[in-house]
Amino acid sequence: MTDIAVAAWETAAATLEHLAIELPSWAFGNSGTRFRVFGTPGTPRTPEEKIADAATVHRFTGLAPTVALHIPWDTVEDFAALRAFAEDHGVRLGTVNSNTFQDEAYKFGSLASSDPAVRRQAIDHHFQCLDIMAVTGSRDLKIWLADGTNYPGQDDIRRRQDTLADSLATIYERIGPDQRLVLEYKLFEPAFYHTDVPDWGTAYVHVAALGERAVVCLDTGHHAPGTNIEFIVAQLLRLGKLGSFDFNSRFYADDDLIVGAADPFQLFRILAEVIRGGGLGPGSPVAFMLDQCHNIEEKIPGQIRSVLNVQEMTARALLLDRDALELAQREHDVLTANGIVMDAFATDVRPVLAAWREERGLPADPMAAYRASGYRERIIAERVGGAQAGWGA
Amino acid sequence: MTDIAVAAWETAAATLEHLAIELPSWAFGNSGTRFRVFGTPGTPRTPEEKIADAATVHRFTGLAPTVALHIPWDTVEDFAALRAFAEDHGVRLGTVNSNTFQDEAYKFGSLASSDPAVRRQAIDHHFQCLDIMAVTGSRDLKIWLADGTNYPGQDDIRRRQDTLADSLATIYERIGPDQRLVLEYKLFEPAFYHTDVPDWGTAYVHVAALGERAVVCLDTGHHAPGTNIEFIVAQLLRLGKLGSFDFNSRFYADDDLIVGAADPFQLFRILAEVIRGGGLGPGSPVAFMLDQCHNIEEKIPGQIRSVLNVQEMTARALLLDRDALELAQREHDVLTANGIVMDAFATDVRPVLAAWREERGLPADPMAAYRASGYRERIIAERVGGAQAGWGA
Amino acid sequence: MTDIAVAAWETAAATLEHLAIELPSWAFGNSGTRFRVFGTPGTPRTPEEKIADAATVHRFTGLAPTVALHIPWDTVEDFAALRAFAEDHGVRLGTVNSNTFQDEAYKFGSLASSDPAVRRQAIDHHFQCLDIMAVTGSRDLKIWLADGTNYPGQDDIRRRQDTLADSLATIYERIGPDQRLVLEYKLFEPAFYHTDVPDWGTAYVHVAALGERAVVCLDTGHHAPGTNIEFIVAQLLRLGKLGSFDFNSRFYADDDLIVGAADPFQLFRILAEVIRGGGLGPGSPVAFMLDQCHNIEEKIPGQIRSVLNVQEMTARALLLDRDALELAQREHDVLTANGIVMDAFATDVRPVLAAWREERGLPADPMAAYRASGYRERIIAERVGGAQAGWGA
Amino acid sequence: MTDIAVAAWETAAATLEHLAIELPSWAFGNSGTRFRVFGTPGTPRTPEEKIADAATVHRFTGLAPTVALHIPWDTVEDFAALRAFAEDHGVRLGTVNSNTFQDEAYKFGSLASSDPAVRRQAIDHHFQCLDIMAVTGSRDLKIWLADGTNYPGQDDIRRRQDTLADSLATIYERIGPDQRLVLEYKLFEPAFYHTDVPDWGTAYVHVAALGERAVVCLDTGHHAPGTNIEFIVAQLLRLGKLGSFDFNSRFYADDDLIVGAADPFQLFRILAEVIRGGGLGPGSPVAFMLDQCHNIEEKIPGQIRSVLNVQEMTARALLLDRDALELAQREHDVLTANGIVMDAFATDVRPVLAAWREERGLPADPMAAYRASGYRERIIAERVGGAQAGWGA
Repeated sequence: MTDIAVAAWETAAATLEHLAIELPSWAFGNSGTRFRVFGTPGTPRTPEEKIADAATVHRFTGLAPTVALHIPWDTVEDFAALRAFAEDHGVRLGTVNSNTFQDEAYKFGSLASSDPAVRRQAIDHHFQCLDIMAVTGSRDLKIWLADGTNYPGQDDIRRRQDTLADSLATIYERIGPDQRLVLEYKLFEPAFYHTDVPDWGTAYVHVAALGERAVVCLDTGHHAPGTNIEFIVAQLLRLGKLGSFDFNSRFYADDDLIVGAADPFQLFRILAEVIRGGGLGPGSPVAFMLDQCHNIEEKIPGQIRSVLNVQEMTARALLLDRDALELAQREHDVLTANGIVMDAFATDVRPVLAAWREERGLPADPMAAYRASGYRERIIAERVGGAQAGWGA
Repeated sequence: MTDIAVAAWETAAATLEHLAIELPSWAFGNSGTRFRVFGTPGTPRTPEEKIADAATVHRFTGLAPTVALHIPWDTVEDFAALRAFAEDHGVRLGTVNSNTFQDEAYKFGSLASSDPAVRRQAIDHHFQCLDIMAVTGSRDLKIWLADGTNYPGQDDIRRRQDTLADSLATIYERIGPDQRLVLEYKLFEPAFYHTDVPDWGTAYVHVAALGERAVVCLDTGHHAPGTNIEFIVAQLLRLGKLGSFDFNSRFYADDDLIVGAADPFQLFRILAEVIRGGGLGPGSPVAFMLDQCHNIEEKIPGQIRSVLNVQEMTARALLLDRDALELAQREHDVLTANGIVMDAFATDVRPVLAAWREERGLPADPMAAYRASGYRERIIAERVGGAQAGWGA
Repeated sequence: MTDIAVAAWETAAATLEHLAIELPSWAFGNSGTRFRVFGTPGTPRTPEEKIADAATVHRFTGLAPTVALHIPWDTVEDFAALRAFAEDHGVRLGTVNSNTFQDEAYKFGSLASSDPAVRRQAIDHHFQCLDIMAVTGSRDLKIWLADGTNYPGQDDIRRRQDTLADSLATIYERIGPDQRLVLEYKLFEPAFYHTDVPDWGTAYVHVAALGERAVVCLDTGHHAPGTNIEFIVAQLLRLGKLGSFDFNSRFYADDDLIVGAADPFQLFRILAEVIRGGGLGPGSPVAFMLDQCHNIEEKIPGQIRSVLNVQEMTARALLLDRDALELAQREHDVLTANGIVMDAFATDVRPVLAAWREERGLPADPMAAYRASGYRERIIAERVGGAQAGWGA
Repeated sequence: MTDIAVAAWETAAATLEHLAIELPSWAFGNSGTRFRVFGTPGTPRTPEEKIADAATVHRFTGLAPTVALHIPWDTVEDFAALRAFAEDHGVRLGTVNSNTFQDEAYKFGSLASSDPAVRRQAIDHHFQCLDIMAVTGSRDLKIWLADGTNYPGQDDIRRRQDTLADSLATIYERIGPDQRLVLEYKLFEPAFYHTDVPDWGTAYVHVAALGERAVVCLDTGHHAPGTNIEFIVAQLLRLGKLGSFDFNSRFYADDDLIVGAADPFQLFRILAEVIRGGGLGPGSPVAFMLDQCHNIEEKIPGQIRSVLNVQEMTARALLLDRDALELAQREHDVLTANGIVMDAFATDVRPVLAAWREERGLPADPMAAYRASGYRERIIAERVGGAQAGWGA
């Protein structure tokens, strides 16, 4: 790091305190593709075990103070007890994610279905999620819909939009004054002809119609090839509607790989635009979350690597010399302006982040510390029998 | 055609009367790629010659009563005379397209530029276009912007949005009560990192902020791979913001091929959604235009083929048995619903359209009639000397 | 149909006799996405029930005389009995598809694995398939590999190519003189960083190294966006290495939709190139197969619709006026040449195909005939209890 | 840099000596899009001025000892004098690039044209290039073809392959014993339906048929979205057919941006695979070249930045701990293996490269040194009048 970067780092480090990345409970369960879900020894069997694993990630990184739940995968008898369990382990319960894609009833849609009974079931499911949120203390209800069709003509695209708007409005009415409805968009999968909320424009149109407490979730893997995601970040921040991120990465479709694994420069650019738009720091409305699938790699270190990647790219983005950049931009000095961005990206922040961690009583190398901790061996030994958690349960 | 289709055709034919496709003056000039612009004998040298060619397309098809202008490519001393010239040739002047990409000043942007003088020049250019529209009787001012950047950091994406919004608002203030500002979006090219109006969501956000007389232009070649364009059609119609189409087709990027040449089924689906959403017929706010490049094929028959393609796919879409479709959709009978759509698409409407044309005193086969007319030979003989029109003039 | 088309139809009809499309046994079982596999009443529980369903498709269409097996999904005690069962139902057993993606051992690869024991297991599995083929009388052993990696560095791309080549050579040694090894390529999924046989070039390189009886399988859904598939068809036919098709269609990734559902014009172009290159008719080495997923639609009529789509597009492609086309091509008359292609595609062949079917004692409308047959109701009533077949069994 | 990296750097630095990147003469002329070619003060007017600029890049970086020519853009009366001019300026003439896309004759193709006279002209042009190479001392004749079609049916894809093969064979016969025919592939543009050499498979098939001295050129911007380019690198090296690179970068299509600007991690992966496959170092058959368009940025510093980017990513790739990687791969330790790759990529090599440069008498910061040199001001002052070089001349 140059001296200049070191000075910039002081400022950056202060902002970095505010970085918190929510972990998805389901990342600790098994996942896979339609071809195969491979299991891993030590995989959690219960919501509590998932939370314990998430808390482990936080213990080694200091970056992941909350855990998102997925209902019904994380349904328990007593959510107050689950909350206490989490807090005893040093983390809090966060966003509640609804599920309207795994019940037989949802074969042809949920909130956008033409069938009133199905729609009712889907709305009621969200009410149930809100009830849970009251107990868990969660702020955000996140709605990702698998709704869509596989064949032209299968259903009426236009009518589904209106139906969806009605369903969302019904749910929104119950959103509490300190809660938010967060609507996620996705280009395709599991629907292969049309998806009812395929792009940020559609998500925006719906949340704008709902009101202030409705915002958009941007999943970094849910776009068409070539989409400039940082542009969407800038636009949604400008419109006051960027509610949260689902971080992950992709080479092809919604691959759900470790965030930063496929294109770290893209992650850097996204985070630079978040910072530019006021999306990081105290009072920011933007929640950072992971949404990934550790199909073949170990899950806990996979999550550790993920939050470290976000931290590294945030640190690099914070090192961006914005005054110099502004100057070069005004002068249309393309190469200098781009060079300033590339210089921030080229900075190796691993040493200063290691020091930053040690100052806070965290391990300098969280991956190594986790491996040395024996946690992995312990859960492999302990978690024998029972059904490993996955997307089905 | 089955008997049922024949009956359906009666109704369809009535709606088909309302089909009108605006031709772009520039389609009759030379176009090409960055590698080469090939010339063609008989290419127009003046706006008048372009209009004469457009009028020829209308004469053989009855489908293209208006011609869009591009300023400054179609600048003349006397626009009233140009209007009279057009009307004498049986067509009217239509949309005025502004150009903010060919002046040296626009190297780093126009309406979104950080340079006030450049922005002023670009705004003034639009005022000039509005002055021309007052003379030509044009309703629509169409704005496609080449604005964007080629490198991360080159300019501030967020600030450019605000600047653009200001510029558009300044122009919008001068839009007359019966005029419209039509904003076109495009994913990329000529900018290769970010484009200031890259997607329908951005175009929508801007026109919604401007007001009622601001609408979106959907160019069918301006999307990322995999984008479901008919969904956007349905959404924009639902939002009351679909102002016009720039029709063309593509296999790869913005190839600007003859509409319907690359994926006729997509064109059919788009038109079916236009009809579904009330975008065709008297009183519809949706204007149909072509925006194509006849790089290697002859231009006049290229335009004839294009308007015939739109007519054929509109006719097929009008044959869609919407009652049966609605029923199958409600019953979630996927294969029947899709089959109804595919049946409409499989219908060979060429014979009934040939008859439809003959009833109206038009040639049954416009392509053959044009070829037999001697028009091509005449313009080749007459248009000797001078500079063939192209994108530069 | 014009008179000319009727005359052309006579010739076309003769070639159409040779059209045969192999059905995949697995298309009759349940399939889905990683999010959910929805069941359907009447879904087969055994290989025999799958074959009975496939035979039903053939009975109503006359187009599907063979059924492909997937090992181990279709493993039975007595393959000779299965063969007899099929023949009793009017169909034959066809291609045998191996499976190297569902055993826990294959988590990090199969034929390309760096682990000799895993590779041995995968090779032995193919030997077992060859043993089965000796009993079933199958000609083709089809190998689609899920092998690949999810993260840069996970494994050595280069070494895996060599390992794969060795494994394939070992299998090829056992291929009988009248048998073929058919290697399929796929861009991605389930591997999300690199796939060991991602493109036709790689498949070609391997089969060319193996020898004459090794050929390529082209799955129409396994390409990057924008890929010109008919070009690959032409190239592989030119090289004598197009062994078979896995037909299906897609809007996004490997969506495995009904062939012809997403882009019928593309299917037409592919078939036109097959015919152009001698890939249809007696003695052609090209096998036509379906490989689809009927996630939400009914499976048997889904397969009926699929083979009819192939037949319709083959018929249209056979109507192409190749003499006129050749002439227009030589004269560089782009619009006429393209018009000839579009005219063939615009021809509604449904009536002549209905007549063609009736002449052969088949129902004019196979979809309606199937629905009226009571077969669906019978299997729903009979197939109660047991486990519905799917990708896992 | 860690101590380990410093040790690794010693070895890396030795290999880095062999890094040489050929500059394209045309990168110093103006380029643009079909919408506009913007000029820049100081742009060369002659081949000599282009070479002088290229030599300047070499003087400040030590990385670019050769300049590629493009015929006819760089045609001069006396190529021996041009060679002497280059050598006097400290660089050599390198690859000769043919041009078969700008003559009116090539509207419908060149080497793949069905017109024997056009084909003859295109072949003769390559003979002329070979004559020039004899004088310039160039080893490689690079052939990139714009050949293709815009519409289905426009020409016979299959026949064009055979024609192309014949044409290439005719040219290959004249390739000298120490020369190479280098065939480049490209997915699309300027042809928008099919391209005659669209992918590496096609290029490979042709050069394999020609013989040993025919190899493939991989342009990093010529692939479909999602293509894993490093896989192709590995495969072509394995097959002994990777002849050269045309480096550049892209976000969308063939954007021809500065190499490493869009996805530096991809560039790193490509270079890591080059090194893995023996493509870097003495005796390697792989030539590194740039092929870029500096549409809006300054050209000379644009080229300086480009060669520095290649050097930086090569240095990072050389730091890859291959022994540790091999071990992690063998153990299927996905996260460790990937972590080793990411660690190499995260290493900030700018300081050691600055030192490396200073040891060799080069400026530590070539961009700053160029800016301080006054070269830019001098050429702006001197190069007044005349026609700036571009793609047309």
